[in-house]
Amino acid sequence: MDALGNVRSLRPIVRDIDTDVLSPEGLRFLSALDSSKLPLVNQPGRLGSPLASVREIIAIGLNYREHARESGLAIPVEPVVFAKSTSSISGPNDDIVLPAGSEKTDWEIELGIVIGSVTKRVDKEKARASIAGYCLVNDVSERAWQIERAGQWGKGKSFDTFTPIGPWLVTGDEVDPNALDLSLKVNGQIRQHGNTSDLIFDVDTIVSYVSQFMTLMPGDLIITGTPAGVGLGMKPPQFLAAGDVVDMSVTGLGTQRHLVVSSD
Amino acid sequence: MDALGNVRSLRPIVRDIDTDVLSPEGLRFLSALDSSKLPLVNQPGRLGSPLASVREIIAIGLNYREHARESGLAIPVEPVVFAKSTSSISGPNDDIVLPAGSEKTDWEIELGIVIGSVTKRVDKEKARASIAGYCLVNDVSERAWQIERAGQWGKGKSFDTFTPIGPWLVTGDEVDPNALDLSLKVNGQIRQHGNTSDLIFDVDTIVSYVSQFMTLMPGDLIITGTPAGVGLGMKPPQFLAAGDVVDMSVTGLGTQRHLVVSSD
Repeated sequence: MDALGNVRSLRPIVRDIDTDVLSPEGLRFLSALDSSKLPLVNQPGRLGSPLASVREIIAIGLNYREHARESGLAIPVEPVVFAKSTSSISGPNDDIVLPAGSEKTDWEIELGIVIGSVTKRVDKEKARASIAGYCLVNDVSERAWQIERAGQWGKGKSFDTFTPIGPWLVTGDEVDPNALDLSLKVNGQIRQHGNTSDLIFDVDTIVSYVSQFMTLMPGDLIITGTPAGVGLGMKPPQFLAAGDVVDMSVTGLGTQRHLVVSSD
Repeated sequence: MDALGNVRSLRPIVRDIDTDVLSPEGLRFLSALDSSKLPLVNQPGRLGSPLASVREIIAIGLNYREHARESGLAIPVEPVVFAKSTSSISGPNDDIVLPAGSEKTDWEIELGIVIGSVTKRVDKEKARASIAGYCLVNDVSERAWQIERAGQWGKGKSFDTFTPIGPWLVTGDEVDPNALDLSLKVNGQIRQHGNTSDLIFDVDTIVSYVSQFMTLMPGDLIITGTPAGVGLGMKPPQFLAAGDVVDMSVTGLGTQRHLVVSSD
């Protein structure tokens, strides 16, 4: 995307947005390009995930106070970490498919952090150097599978189409990740509206914290938690149904629109 | 490894044990080879993981009754599923590195299932066709990080060297995965001795179950749970210390030996 909002192609310079491109060297190379001279894409068609090879999806839970409260759970004293399967990844405007037999599929708008270099036990003050960029992510969640099916949340977070990513990977020099407005609508009704300045554990703290327990690798995606306003927290709870439309946006990171469809 | 116990090389026929090799077609190709005609490897040196590209590590918790009891947890009514980071993978005889500041690093011998084809919502009766083979895995676990650090087990399961795999990938035609003896010693003392016939949820049930919640992909590794005898269950609990030696074996899947070292 150039300064005028036109989609420009990185082909044939870059084969795909893979771990080489996400490295500090790769990003320096990209930032040296004059985007106005890249070929225009007139008919973008379907957009896929802007990341070619997400190695792992690491998710932070309950990272906004009001969301912890609406979930009926304690405000965490340190980050809650869980995983989503990468087979759940889809494009920013792809359909969200309700799994057959599921009844509690819910939305969660989140800021995604894309790791650009090997990161082990990094200090919070140096964490920013490990980040290749940011993206908009929907952490779609089947609440019955997440909560009522024998512990550990990943079970409700990993179905196909449950992790729409994009439209863009925005490099760290273009946004302040700790001051981004997030908003999500279902059928035109505002459901979530928050700002990453309200994160209990901010972007730098998250990267530092997770790297104490596992070595982060280029292509890892860390999603940072969702603000209040999920369906589970509504009174009565309200979940996605076939035909619903979910619209999401985060300052500087673009928008997503999903039609909810049945898998049958 | 040929019939006489000699290590034979698959180079240059096979570049690495990747998703192409794990596919049903790839395995048919390998089974057609006469291993006695492959080049001998006289000095194998360090063995790495027999899998080149583990996409995700999906772990089943509390899958032996006595282990659930020793952990002080209820016997699950359906499989408990959690994830380990693939950056924790190491070779079958590599050192286990105790993370600086950790105090409760524990052993867990497990049978690993390697997925060979894309698998979504497969019936138990057809699950076996999705499996490329089996391997021996140590699900090394830092118990304080797993249990005492704000929920979700992956945090204690994902440090570097916490998932030794191998030495071999054994294809499904060579073993009955639901009748394998597992044993683990620490400093020559037997600590775990079990048989996969005691799994609460057997191999076929696990593959079918997990595939209800996420699409399994070639290269996914599912580890099936550990029998009783972990350090956490001892009275008093006993954890790994620098200088300890862990020996593991599973019928037909080979052996592992780890020296435990400090990260300092």
